[in-house]
Amino acid sequence: MMNAATNQGQSAVPLDKFLALPDFEPAAKQVLPHPVYEYIASGAGNEITLIENERAYDRIRIWPRVLNDVRSVDTTVPLFGKMLSSPILLAPAAYQGAMHPSGELGTVRGAGRAGIPFVVSTNTTIPIEELIKEARAPLWFQLYTQNDRGYTSDLVQEVEASGCEAVCVTVDTPVLGIRTRQFRAGFQLPPGVSTPHNRRGGGAGGNIDPSLHSHLQWQDIDWLRSIVRSKLWVKGILHPDDADRAIKMGVDGIMVSNHGARNIDTIPATIDVLPAIHERVAGRVPVIVDGGIRRGTDVLKALMRGATAVMMGRPYLYALAVGGEDGVARCIELLTKELIYVLRLVGKASVKELDRSLEWPPVAS
Amino acid sequence: MMNAATNQGQSAVPLDKFLALPDFEPAAKQVLPHPVYEYIASGAGNEITLIENERAYDRIRIWPRVLNDVRSVDTTVPLFGKMLSSPILLAPAAYQGAMHPSGELGTVRGAGRAGIPFVVSTNTTIPIEELIKEARAPLWFQLYTQNDRGYTSDLVQEVEASGCEAVCVTVDTPVLGIRTRQFRAGFQLPPGVSTPHNRRGGGAGGNIDPSLHSHLQWQDIDWLRSIVRSKLWVKGILHPDDADRAIKMGVDGIMVSNHGARNIDTIPATIDVLPAIHERVAGRVPVIVDGGIRRGTDVLKALMRGATAVMMGRPYLYALAVGGEDGVARCIELLTKELIYVLRLVGKASVKELDRSLEWPPVAS
Amino acid sequence: MMNAATNQGQSAVPLDKFLALPDFEPAAKQVLPHPVYEYIASGAGNEITLIENERAYDRIRIWPRVLNDVRSVDTTVPLFGKMLSSPILLAPAAYQGAMHPSGELGTVRGAGRAGIPFVVSTNTTIPIEELIKEARAPLWFQLYTQNDRGYTSDLVQEVEASGCEAVCVTVDTPVLGIRTRQFRAGFQLPPGVSTPHNRRGGGAGGNIDPSLHSHLQWQDIDWLRSIVRSKLWVKGILHPDDADRAIKMGVDGIMVSNHGARNIDTIPATIDVLPAIHERVAGRVPVIVDGGIRRGTDVLKALMRGATAVMMGRPYLYALAVGGEDGVARCIELLTKELIYVLRLVGKASVKELDRSLEWPPVAS
Amino acid sequence: MMNAATNQGQSAVPLDKFLALPDFEPAAKQVLPHPVYEYIASGAGNEITLIENERAYDRIRIWPRVLNDVRSVDTTVPLFGKMLSSPILLAPAAYQGAMHPSGELGTVRGAGRAGIPFVVSTNTTIPIEELIKEARAPLWFQLYTQNDRGYTSDLVQEVEASGCEAVCVTVDTPVLGIRTRQFRAGFQLPPGVSTPHNRRGGGAGGNIDPSLHSHLQWQDIDWLRSIVRSKLWVKGILHPDDADRAIKMGVDGIMVSNHGARNIDTIPATIDVLPAIHERVAGRVPVIVDGGIRRGTDVLKALMRGATAVMMGRPYLYALAVGGEDGVARCIELLTKELIYVLRLVGKASVKELDRSLEWPPVAS
Repeated sequence: MMNAATNQGQSAVPLDKFLALPDFEPAAKQVLPHPVYEYIASGAGNEITLIENERAYDRIRIWPRVLNDVRSVDTTVPLFGKMLSSPILLAPAAYQGAMHPSGELGTVRGAGRAGIPFVVSTNTTIPIEELIKEARAPLWFQLYTQNDRGYTSDLVQEVEASGCEAVCVTVDTPVLGIRTRQFRAGFQLPPGVSTPHNRRGGGAGGNIDPSLHSHLQWQDIDWLRSIVRSKLWVKGILHPDDADRAIKMGVDGIMVSNHGARNIDTIPATIDVLPAIHERVAGRVPVIVDGGIRRGTDVLKALMRGATAVMMGRPYLYALAVGGEDGVARCIELLTKELIYVLRLVGKASVKELDRSLEWPPVAS
Repeated sequence: MMNAATNQGQSAVPLDKFLALPDFEPAAKQVLPHPVYEYIASGAGNEITLIENERAYDRIRIWPRVLNDVRSVDTTVPLFGKMLSSPILLAPAAYQGAMHPSGELGTVRGAGRAGIPFVVSTNTTIPIEELIKEARAPLWFQLYTQNDRGYTSDLVQEVEASGCEAVCVTVDTPVLGIRTRQFRAGFQLPPGVSTPHNRRGGGAGGNIDPSLHSHLQWQDIDWLRSIVRSKLWVKGILHPDDADRAIKMGVDGIMVSNHGARNIDTIPATIDVLPAIHERVAGRVPVIVDGGIRRGTDVLKALMRGATAVMMGRPYLYALAVGGEDGVARCIELLTKELIYVLRLVGKASVKELDRSLEWPPVAS
Repeated sequence: MMNAATNQGQSAVPLDKFLALPDFEPAAKQVLPHPVYEYIASGAGNEITLIENERAYDRIRIWPRVLNDVRSVDTTVPLFGKMLSSPILLAPAAYQGAMHPSGELGTVRGAGRAGIPFVVSTNTTIPIEELIKEARAPLWFQLYTQNDRGYTSDLVQEVEASGCEAVCVTVDTPVLGIRTRQFRAGFQLPPGVSTPHNRRGGGAGGNIDPSLHSHLQWQDIDWLRSIVRSKLWVKGILHPDDADRAIKMGVDGIMVSNHGARNIDTIPATIDVLPAIHERVAGRVPVIVDGGIRRGTDVLKALMRGATAVMMGRPYLYALAVGGEDGVARCIELLTKELIYVLRLVGKASVKELDRSLEWPPVAS
Repeated sequence: MMNAATNQGQSAVPLDKFLALPDFEPAAKQVLPHPVYEYIASGAGNEITLIENERAYDRIRIWPRVLNDVRSVDTTVPLFGKMLSSPILLAPAAYQGAMHPSGELGTVRGAGRAGIPFVVSTNTTIPIEELIKEARAPLWFQLYTQNDRGYTSDLVQEVEASGCEAVCVTVDTPVLGIRTRQFRAGFQLPPGVSTPHNRRGGGAGGNIDPSLHSHLQWQDIDWLRSIVRSKLWVKGILHPDDADRAIKMGVDGIMVSNHGARNIDTIPATIDVLPAIHERVAGRVPVIVDGGIRRGTDVLKALMRGATAVMMGRPYLYALAVGGEDGVARCIELLTKELIYVLRLVGKASVKELDRSLEWPPVAS
């Protein structure tokens, strides 16, 4: 079992030894209790999609250009009239209090140092009111709805009142996924760690009641649209028809996600379905993609295939486990720096210039 | 050699530790005598098709939809005016008395607890009359014909009189397959285990007389059609022209099977030839597919490619070896539960809604 | 080094333990001196084509038919007005005296017991006159020409006078191949073993003078045609244009071969170029293919892609090393038996019925 | 750490034991300090392109022809009115003084013995003036420009005055690549080794100031064209549009390179983008390709896809480490000999006859 002292941020390994995002996982595996590591690392079924989320990026070839003016590089992304400092966000992930004593506070501080948004999970172990006090960058809220509309409505009002700038409703989890590996590891929330915003999932760890979300349907998006005053994203879209329907209901943005490959195995990698969704969305709303982001080249590929921004998940959780706030900040710094270098190396001075002409072989039009 | 006491159903490993079908094989390998394990596990030749039967499912990508009403899920399948409780059957497999003391009795009881049909092999080690007494779900009979039409005719009358609801004649085994690995293991029926319905194959274990079935020809299907009063299936079809010819002879159903990859190596995975057969059959008769079913997603894929139902083979044999009747029931329970979860996760409330629009990338039409 | 007693045919492993051709290689590796094993096993360069010769067969999918009359199976192949008992020949291979004390005598006796032709290499270690005395099946002669036309002419006359029924001139080896692995192993002919029909290659083992064959050109085929009174085959054709040109010069048959992947690495597998050559040849002459034949399914695939017959190479050399004449006979028996079984299992009663309709997916026409 | 005595050219392994280029790497790994080995061996990111540079060659299939006159083979390549003795050059590589005591002197001598050009890096550890004294074959100069045009201009004049016949300006490195593995190894120039022609990169080893080259833009090619009196190549082109633009600015040649896969991971293998560039260049200027050349077949493939010549990189560095001048000479000898053998084996008497008709399957036109 984890010795609580070992991951208080005083890691034996100095953070400057972490040179790329893949470095964090083996270090986190050393420091985390096995069930917690398994909770983060595992995917659904035989984990074919889990692997595919990364391999799909690996297969994409970037076709670089040379001799353009890349003396300065612009990574800012306009979004709803403001600017994100970079096209990178931190994806929602539950139970961070089981990963590091600082829990989501470490994450919000690390994100704040880089100035990038953090999407807080409904299953946060720290109340949103405490997180917002430490936030130096936008907080967004990931929403698991519950059968009780009153509870959901109260929750939305509460997080918006706290200052969350967006609500991202997860639509891909009517029941919990086929998480064989996670169930085998027997992950449970440690004593003293709870989920203040989830009445039912709190003490249950991975064993959430399967009936929890199965009610959520298209008409609920209409209802959510009527009560959400901040920006409303739907998270978990993989099909262009579903993206289109959600946009017609007035959502502000589409999150292309396969839930980190935790729900159904052998569904496509998100980066592979992105082009079809990008084409259907046709610029009406921004599109964010998550799943498999490990390198600056991955961010570049997502953007050249039409994403407005990306969300990174597991790497920052491993970094949190290894180094708390400092780990998260280091993780973001490495990915951002790689993106800036890669932009220069492919001859593009701005993320706004990225499109599929950067992909080899040329995509048939 | 196997200690007979070790697999009487009092397995050291509690069955609730088995979380998915792939869990049963390593446990069965521990408990089974090596030649018996090899008999179950092995395939023809270099076992390329054996692996391919599973890999072909792994390669298919499901394209899930969201926000549909999946509060209740319907897995029932109408068949010949009745309803199957789920699209899952137990495939025929010989010599189950060598796998567990209860033999086919364990299987029929396990299937009965789940209410799904069990297709009993001609090479059953328990007489069909005894099995039918324990049956709480339909029994079907897999038929190996023999040169002696009188013997075959008597056998069909006997099993139909006992209450079998269907006869599934195997048409893909004019001679025994190229079973290098099985022959090397030297599988033989243990003392005291016999095949009461197979006059010639009984004591011979894997060394069945190659001339056993080589007589079986198209005209025999005509003859069988004339004597079978229950439903007649042909098992072992891989080519649309053969499916069509059999249907024109009046068979009630087509079983797409490569004999569990035990006969010829480097033939296609069944799931890969299914679409062409589904298109040719064009709904005239139901189509069942076996080979490689290990996950709920596999069942879903078979149905979306046109199967009416699937048959599972090796996993329930391993489960029988590990836990007898309880093992078989657990195995069926796990697969059925995965199917129900996956249906919800892909946004389909009924197996009747499954078609190829759920496959990514879209199939050219 | 090899203890001469160990492979005199009194192998410790009884030959009935060899159940398929791949069984012979590991046993041969045990009994052969390392350089001799390497000489047989190795290919050119990084051995990509060596592996590909087998993998290309593995990738081809057979589409079996059912319920045809396969009670008797016909494997005979008409050739030049006679009948071969099966579509299998033994490929030419040098230096068999280094592999087993009986050398080519073991091979000719083993081939004779199965009644299949053996193509004797110019680099045979037993004179053709001695081999012909033991032959119970046709002997063919593989010819390496030499700059001295008189010597070549004498050699052709000598082997034809001895009773060889065909001369197969190797056209793909103007210089020795890039045989890195063979050179590293330092293969040399053992003392007392020589090549009586090769004046220059005799004592040199693998270190044949690179200038040996580089003279051979198209006009020499004209000349050979004028002096060869038996059947003239060109061996080493991979391009349809070369096949066509040779046929127009009057050769009797085409041998599609990449020299067992021993000459140039990363050239195609023979089975992959066969269809294009078959189409160009258009039945004018028979076509034989070698390279990668290990299973009955491989023979079937070669025939369904247009080959008249196949030559097997390395497997019979390993069998010779393991068991001399008995080993060669066992090796041929296993392959022939697999072919007969596979014919029945795919629903074909004769090798003459094989064509590309047996290939899945259907080949676009 | 390296014992300075071990790689003075008195290698324990005689050079005639090196039979092919891949033999040098493991031997060099034994003799080199770990950080230096890592500096040579490593690539950008996850090293997908590093592997792909070789695998792309492995995937290409050569379609050999037979019976042509290949008694003599011509490897000469006309270039700018002179003849190269072979289509092989030594690619630029920095810091060779860290790899062997003789540094670039060993390389220039080895290249001279084979009569092939050596492209000296700006980061040479031996001044160009000393190298030119030992040169028995053309020296070309690889140029990293610096912000200070005066410095660059002086450098070009100096190397041209010394006798360099070409200036190859690197255009693909506005910042240093994402060299995770190299950074982890902590490569630094050893004491006493410096880069006399690089004012800023000298003592910094791998830690070159990222701002070093980011200024270089298309207008600088115009300027370079105006000051370079010898031949001007642009090195690092992967896109046909960039090749075209450079040619229109008057450059003398295009070097298709991905910087040995050291800059951006998951960009295409050079051999895969070569055909598109060859087609656009359309013979206006010569095209040289580097990256992944390990075998004579690789040289052949590059030429048949349109390259005028190739540059070999890592193999000669390993050979230098192992055997100094003798190692480099052996390395070139092996590759050249393989090329000559392969030409004969594919039926081509001259490198000038190579085109894509030698590629299988036939390329759609």
